[in-house]
Amino acid sequence: MNENGLREMLEAVRTGHLGIGDALRKMKSLPYENLGFACVDSHRHLRKGFPEVIFCEGKQTSQIIEIARKLVADAGNLLATRAGENVFTEFRETFPDARYNRMGRTITINNQPLPERPGLVLIVTAGTSDIPVAEEAKETASIMGNRVETLYDVGVAGIHRLLGRKDLLWRAEVIIVVAGMDGALPGVVAGLVDKPVVAVPTSIGYGASFSGLAPLLTMLNACASGVAVVNIDNGFGAGQLASVINSVNLSGK
Amino acid sequence: MNENGLREMLEAVRTGHLGIGDALRKMKSLPYENLGFACVDSHRHLRKGFPEVIFCEGKQTSQIIEIARKLVADAGNLLATRAGENVFTEFRETFPDARYNRMGRTITINNQPLPERPGLVLIVTAGTSDIPVAEEAKETASIMGNRVETLYDVGVAGIHRLLGRKDLLWRAEVIIVVAGMDGALPGVVAGLVDKPVVAVPTSIGYGASFSGLAPLLTMLNACASGVAVVNIDNGFGAGQLASVINSVNLSGK
Amino acid sequence: MNENGLREMLEAVRTGHLGIGDALRKMKSLPYENLGFACVDSHRHLRKGFPEVIFCEGKQTSQIIEIARKLVADAGNLLATRAGENVFTEFRETFPDARYNRMGRTITINNQPLPERPGLVLIVTAGTSDIPVAEEAKETASIMGNRVETLYDVGVAGIHRLLGRKDLLWRAEVIIVVAGMDGALPGVVAGLVDKPVVAVPTSIGYGASFSGLAPLLTMLNACASGVAVVNIDNGFGAGQLASVINSVNLSGK
Amino acid sequence: MNENGLREMLEAVRTGHLGIGDALRKMKSLPYENLGFACVDSHRHLRKGFPEVIFCEGKQTSQIIEIARKLVADAGNLLATRAGENVFTEFRETFPDARYNRMGRTITINNQPLPERPGLVLIVTAGTSDIPVAEEAKETASIMGNRVETLYDVGVAGIHRLLGRKDLLWRAEVIIVVAGMDGALPGVVAGLVDKPVVAVPTSIGYGASFSGLAPLLTMLNACASGVAVVNIDNGFGAGQLASVINSVNLSGK
Amino acid sequence: MNENGLREMLEAVRTGHLGIGDALRKMKSLPYENLGFACVDSHRHLRKGFPEVIFCEGKQTSQIIEIARKLVADAGNLLATRAGENVFTEFRETFPDARYNRMGRTITINNQPLPERPGLVLIVTAGTSDIPVAEEAKETASIMGNRVETLYDVGVAGIHRLLGRKDLLWRAEVIIVVAGMDGALPGVVAGLVDKPVVAVPTSIGYGASFSGLAPLLTMLNACASGVAVVNIDNGFGAGQLASVINSVNLSGK
Amino acid sequence: MNENGLREMLEAVRTGHLGIGDALRKMKSLPYENLGFACVDSHRHLRKGFPEVIFCEGKQTSQIIEIARKLVADAGNLLATRAGENVFTEFRETFPDARYNRMGRTITINNQPLPERPGLVLIVTAGTSDIPVAEEAKETASIMGNRVETLYDVGVAGIHRLLGRKDLLWRAEVIIVVAGMDGALPGVVAGLVDKPVVAVPTSIGYGASFSGLAPLLTMLNACASGVAVVNIDNGFGAGQLASVINSVNLSGK
Amino acid sequence: MNENGLREMLEAVRTGHLGIGDALRKMKSLPYENLGFACVDSHRHLRKGFPEVIFCEGKQTSQIIEIARKLVADAGNLLATRAGENVFTEFRETFPDARYNRMGRTITINNQPLPERPGLVLIVTAGTSDIPVAEEAKETASIMGNRVETLYDVGVAGIHRLLGRKDLLWRAEVIIVVAGMDGALPGVVAGLVDKPVVAVPTSIGYGASFSGLAPLLTMLNACASGVAVVNIDNGFGAGQLASVINSVNLSGK
Amino acid sequence: MNENGLREMLEAVRTGHLGIGDALRKMKSLPYENLGFACVDSHRHLRKGFPEVIFCEGKQTSQIIEIARKLVADAGNLLATRAGENVFTEFRETFPDARYNRMGRTITINNQPLPERPGLVLIVTAGTSDIPVAEEAKETASIMGNRVETLYDVGVAGIHRLLGRKDLLWRAEVIIVVAGMDGALPGVVAGLVDKPVVAVPTSIGYGASFSGLAPLLTMLNACASGVAVVNIDNGFGAGQLASVINSVNLSGK
Repeated sequence: MNENGLREMLEAVRTGHLGIGDALRKMKSLPYENLGFACVDSHRHLRKGFPEVIFCEGKQTSQIIEIARKLVADAGNLLATRAGENVFTEFRETFPDARYNRMGRTITINNQPLPERPGLVLIVTAGTSDIPVAEEAKETASIMGNRVETLYDVGVAGIHRLLGRKDLLWRAEVIIVVAGMDGALPGVVAGLVDKPVVAVPTSIGYGASFSGLAPLLTMLNACASGVAVVNIDNGFGAGQLASVINSVNLSGK
Repeated sequence: MNENGLREMLEAVRTGHLGIGDALRKMKSLPYENLGFACVDSHRHLRKGFPEVIFCEGKQTSQIIEIARKLVADAGNLLATRAGENVFTEFRETFPDARYNRMGRTITINNQPLPERPGLVLIVTAGTSDIPVAEEAKETASIMGNRVETLYDVGVAGIHRLLGRKDLLWRAEVIIVVAGMDGALPGVVAGLVDKPVVAVPTSIGYGASFSGLAPLLTMLNACASGVAVVNIDNGFGAGQLASVINSVNLSGK
Repeated sequence: MNENGLREMLEAVRTGHLGIGDALRKMKSLPYENLGFACVDSHRHLRKGFPEVIFCEGKQTSQIIEIARKLVADAGNLLATRAGENVFTEFRETFPDARYNRMGRTITINNQPLPERPGLVLIVTAGTSDIPVAEEAKETASIMGNRVETLYDVGVAGIHRLLGRKDLLWRAEVIIVVAGMDGALPGVVAGLVDKPVVAVPTSIGYGASFSGLAPLLTMLNACASGVAVVNIDNGFGAGQLASVINSVNLSGK
Repeated sequence: MNENGLREMLEAVRTGHLGIGDALRKMKSLPYENLGFACVDSHRHLRKGFPEVIFCEGKQTSQIIEIARKLVADAGNLLATRAGENVFTEFRETFPDARYNRMGRTITINNQPLPERPGLVLIVTAGTSDIPVAEEAKETASIMGNRVETLYDVGVAGIHRLLGRKDLLWRAEVIIVVAGMDGALPGVVAGLVDKPVVAVPTSIGYGASFSGLAPLLTMLNACASGVAVVNIDNGFGAGQLASVINSVNLSGK
Repeated sequence: MNENGLREMLEAVRTGHLGIGDALRKMKSLPYENLGFACVDSHRHLRKGFPEVIFCEGKQTSQIIEIARKLVADAGNLLATRAGENVFTEFRETFPDARYNRMGRTITINNQPLPERPGLVLIVTAGTSDIPVAEEAKETASIMGNRVETLYDVGVAGIHRLLGRKDLLWRAEVIIVVAGMDGALPGVVAGLVDKPVVAVPTSIGYGASFSGLAPLLTMLNACASGVAVVNIDNGFGAGQLASVINSVNLSGK
Repeated sequence: MNENGLREMLEAVRTGHLGIGDALRKMKSLPYENLGFACVDSHRHLRKGFPEVIFCEGKQTSQIIEIARKLVADAGNLLATRAGENVFTEFRETFPDARYNRMGRTITINNQPLPERPGLVLIVTAGTSDIPVAEEAKETASIMGNRVETLYDVGVAGIHRLLGRKDLLWRAEVIIVVAGMDGALPGVVAGLVDKPVVAVPTSIGYGASFSGLAPLLTMLNACASGVAVVNIDNGFGAGQLASVINSVNLSGK
Repeated sequence: MNENGLREMLEAVRTGHLGIGDALRKMKSLPYENLGFACVDSHRHLRKGFPEVIFCEGKQTSQIIEIARKLVADAGNLLATRAGENVFTEFRETFPDARYNRMGRTITINNQPLPERPGLVLIVTAGTSDIPVAEEAKETASIMGNRVETLYDVGVAGIHRLLGRKDLLWRAEVIIVVAGMDGALPGVVAGLVDKPVVAVPTSIGYGASFSGLAPLLTMLNACASGVAVVNIDNGFGAGQLASVINSVNLSGK
Repeated sequence: MNENGLREMLEAVRTGHLGIGDALRKMKSLPYENLGFACVDSHRHLRKGFPEVIFCEGKQTSQIIEIARKLVADAGNLLATRAGENVFTEFRETFPDARYNRMGRTITINNQPLPERPGLVLIVTAGTSDIPVAEEAKETASIMGNRVETLYDVGVAGIHRLLGRKDLLWRAEVIIVVAGMDGALPGVVAGLVDKPVVAVPTSIGYGASFSGLAPLLTMLNACASGVAVVNIDNGFGAGQLASVINSVNLSGK
């Protein structure tokens, strides 16, 4: 309930159309529903521009479907992340128009596509093993209304691969860079452009990568300007952050 | 040297106005100068929209002034961070129009102010001890051409202080949130708005804050969408990232 | 053996009813029994108000049942935690009146229910994935004689869900708050009430949550007053601590 | 503003005694004042039972005094922690009735003593080096209206020192146990009593104590029931938590 | 080859019974055999009083048997640790007199029992989950010629269980204490006796025990004197260290 | 494209044989091919002396074979690491002349063997469990044109095993030392020779080896000179580094 | 009070020479005195064979002297560790016969020297920087009645220095090995002898030694048998442990 | 004593020119002298090609001078690292021909310069703050007989600075790369050359650089081949390793 709603309600109290007890109750009630195991936050659609996203890990498929049913009814669209193939197989029976991205492990329903924003979101990976995280980011940014392109396997061990695509880097409004091991790529990319770089460390690697700690620290210490770090393997968060950044300065348009 | 310059140079080679040896040398020379101890990167002004910034910690004041002289000659403006008062005292003798922010420990020269961008950058702190980092961010964002407002000491232990200023949160295009100890504020702010939140952990605190590790991890794990994390105590990086984000979708205007 | 017992024994020595050797032996013998692999601490019932609890992980089902038999014989009631379904299947054959909580993975026998304490223990979770830990806490607090209510999935990413239930928060005498990832919820709750908040970090999450380290540190650094932290995923310990707190100031009643 | 206030306000709107604009403004205004560098939270007095406490580290003495002046005017009482002797020297000029605890480094003003709660808060330390943290806890619990006794230097290396004072342990309603190095004392104490034990790790020690990490982990892993852990060296937090626990089940009396 | 051997060899060189080349070769040759994948160190029997011990984890059963064959031929006895049941099943076909300890996961052949040392080695555990590590220590100390007794499940959460067996503690010449979680038991035991305590942290537990880090740090920080720490879960090392300690001051006897 | 190529291209521009647009395109195009999921870097063959190596972990066998096909077509040779037996089984169908090292888990094709360098690369392990990592290093160094010998299971617990082979140590030009647990061997070896020692920590071990962290730190702190550390379990990197070192000072020969 | 005392007391109760109340009080009173800030544990002299030792860090000199006065009165002897020169200067005024070890920073009073045990305690260091910790160990072992010799600066980077003194190693009953950086020396020494090796990591070093963490882990992972690890820089603990070990098997003599 | 010496000694024994006792003593005596606090290892000159180096931190100036006197007498040359200016001031009185590098904090005496090796050692830094570590490396490599050039302040945030000097990179036989913060530079350099890269992390930076842990991990995870990592801030070790590498394949020349 925003300020206008509040104002209207106060007017209804003043004019006697609304009792005080009812007004009190109304002020306390918020538009989320209680499924017993999860408070589905429909309100969020208004507040954040996209319905709640289902993180499937650690949830039973039946729970996922129940939440999905509520969200789709409210918002038309859906994004579910970290969904195994077996989840999707069952899921598709209820939602035949759902789409699955095998690498990114996402399920999407896009019945009411959002209008596409003008700026390009570019997703870059250092290696081929970083692609699943990149694909999660791609699905997230796409369904939230962004134009997305990708540039995979251009890590710093062969810097010429990246330098040969400077044109593409320069066309993007936001760049997501996904990298494991040394995590050096986002800093190099940020040194080449004047747009925000969303850096995603991955847990790819072994030994002293310590499940992604190494690239995480590298990215937090990047010397170039404009590097925004998100959690290890958090392709979803990166796609969402890129989408939020890509909506900056658009409200007046 | 951009593509146009390269094209012109190739034309000069073709027309015989430029010898091949000279062309080779020219292609290798880049517009940075070598002061012996530091490669001053004037080129960066073109590439990143703002001249190189001087990180004063670990540099001698005479070195700082020498670098500053070069940068001011090239770009007119200057930002120096982590500058103690004694640095500024000496600095002012060479640059009488320099300004010092005692809390943020920044020196600025703003002879050729950049045009102000339309979007508002809001800087929020959880406690009073986080203000120095916030002030460093404020000076950085300001000199890079952003309108900045601040909202200090509104941490989650008394959440009503933050909720009472939702209007201000909603007016901003980018929000920098600075917090130490539990570092919970950025996640709460990001849950209230639909704009990017730049989260800055601070080393304020003691014990299990482990010099900022605790709030850093909190912010990386924030459940709300749109949180971009930077290094511990990195007010400068936050200001710069906010500025870069605030320039998104403006190039066509 | 308490002071009274000791006094009586000394009297028996003085009156010659008890030999010195027997007195010495008696003073050393304590009422716990040795099952070979586990010292069952029946004495504990007197000392701590509830019989020893069986932590099933890493024990064979036959061992669990043998310990259970001894404890039930002594105390009538039983709580076993971290019990897989296969443990319960076998367990039920010996104890047909045992009850299993699938989510919380607890087995309970409550033949001699403790008198219920007046104060309410409220259990709150940030997300749905935190519910198993919360259920372990609920079973623990319940069997120890506490009235328990729950409020699940009200994390800080949508703070309105929590604020909408302030009435419930204010009715509780002790609040257990279970949260993974950023672990910010206990600090926010503690800022809203004037009662103790038992904070339980969970290992839910990925990447920089580092198996619960992130929310653990967040909770230890909570700025609000009255936050008591227990081990990661320790729903049992939280329930027990809440129960012990809920018995404060009751002895005179 | 509680529910009653809201109800009265709504009645005033209905009866026309309050304009809608005024009602809106009123609902947003909260009773905290802005000193520019710190939002003094007078409201907290109502919400948490004690005025805000000043953490002096990292604040200038003039700032501390300004905040103190506001708080004393509102609440009569004051607690300032981590205050060096030089802070107190200056402080006393403004507040001649302030009292300083040299070991605990606290400043207190207790003009309007709170009514003393019935239950005893006992503070125990493992060694003599843990006493400063214990004294901070003592001052905190005392000014918040608790009866406090202390039992210092009874660590587990000579367990008979502790066992010899079981009577005192059994008289307390809440026990704060302060320990560095191995941090084993809280677990042993909790095994002897049936009341809550607030465990405070200290950074006392060297080497593998890693500035308090070792006792912190020990306490989180304590096998005995009823152990509530707070941050390293957080005597203040322990005193406050003990006080909040000691108010449980008293509201009806 | 000891000093006497060297002296004899030099005499042989002097008397011409040994050529210089042969002497050189002899000095370089050491009595260990090369099996291709493992240098079996028979020499060790002389140097350390017991033949090399086989750590089975990560070795193929065929390799284990080949090494065992060599060692048994040289020394008569054998100790193999971390041996799964399937290893033993196959092992027994080659060595029918081998004995398996299911809990401790050790295989032993004791054809030529070492003479038993006079001092008692006592092995104590905090909980029942620590018993496997204790059994590994027991087998190790036993086969190395020590009298061993055990006292299991007497952790500090019920300190009376330990205090009730002081007599046994006082009879031992060396005490091995095995404990996970808080790891507090070795420090308490060491405070009660004047003999060396070998402390073994275990990886038993969850959450903030961090796979044994917590009890490891606790033991390294134990305030009582005479605590010798070994690696996490290293029952073998503890048994061996206890055995070496138990041979101190015996050489003259 | 090296300087000569650039010079030739510029000459072609000057003589009109190459248009400016074509020159620009040529300067940007680099000889790597895009397989969709991986940029195969054939260029690398020229730049680094050996074709790209396939790290099989986390790749599908079909992907591995597709990359291999491209690399073998370009360079004739191939090295694939971390390849399970099932990968090799399928692989061999496409590449019948491929060879598999079961312990080292490497696949090699060596159709066009590189000329062998004069210097010897010696590979030493502390224990038998370190051999898989050593074998990976051996295959890597061998296919890159180095003579390799091995000396396995000579750890510091029986230092005589190492000292007995000083002659072999002194014959090598580069020594790779692979060690887990305490990781002390590289430092001891480096103290005996005047050639570079490449130190490889392994994740062999348990408890406080923390998956290789312990030997990694040991090696980084080695007091002897000439120790070059690589990542935990990185046999491939060690073999490659040894090969690169073994090519030093050979270019003029 | 040992069993005999208890028996005598019970006899006095039986014969009526001791009232029951007096008996109860006597059983609870233990011979330690309360100085207000420290429980001086005179009882310990009986229990552990040496009076309590004063750890001076973090104590005021006046406190140290007060504790010392009590201890010297009880036991005649004294050991104070981590004592700065200024502490000793003041200390000497009260105890003119006190002796100061400048490197080891210990104060000793040895008025009633303990009888010397037969076995030799050898103290070995890897470098010269480890000597202060070694000297603390030396003073501790000496005053506790042990013959002590030292062998300094024989680290593994020049292994011949150690191997040249095997005779001395073989003469010792217990060996303390002090080492920082890589901490490899204790494992090498333990491989050469069949007596217990007390390993002391030191915080000497920089970078990846992480204040002693590196050598601590190395020592815990030492492959050789018979290595007993104590806390970083804990020379005192090492001396004490060596002394306790050196008393094994002596009680019957 | 090498094999030849041993052979000659054995011959002397055979011919009766050397008694057996003398032979035994001779074999045990090694050419290092004992200064009481430090075993000066003159032998090392033969073994490792350069006399022992003095690490000044934690040593008294008088000790440093005494060791230096011995080393200079033996070897003519000297390198002392981590030497403060005050050390040098005193040092110069004894050694007037000593030279001081203020940035690198090294003292050198080069009376008998070693013959210069043909290969170039190039030292590269990412920033100006990394120069002190680079200068320590430079002095070390220089006095050990290497030609050294430097390329400072060419970090990846402005990658064109590095790419503009590829010619210099390609001329070097070994490259030392010194970098703090993100530590990304060595991986980028190694991707451009086919020679060994010695990577030195520095503790320059703040926050999540964790005193050099971040760049250390980055370098251990570098994807490019041929990266040899040394300890944080270990300029000396890097110079020495580069020197040892630069002597590979030279013995036959």
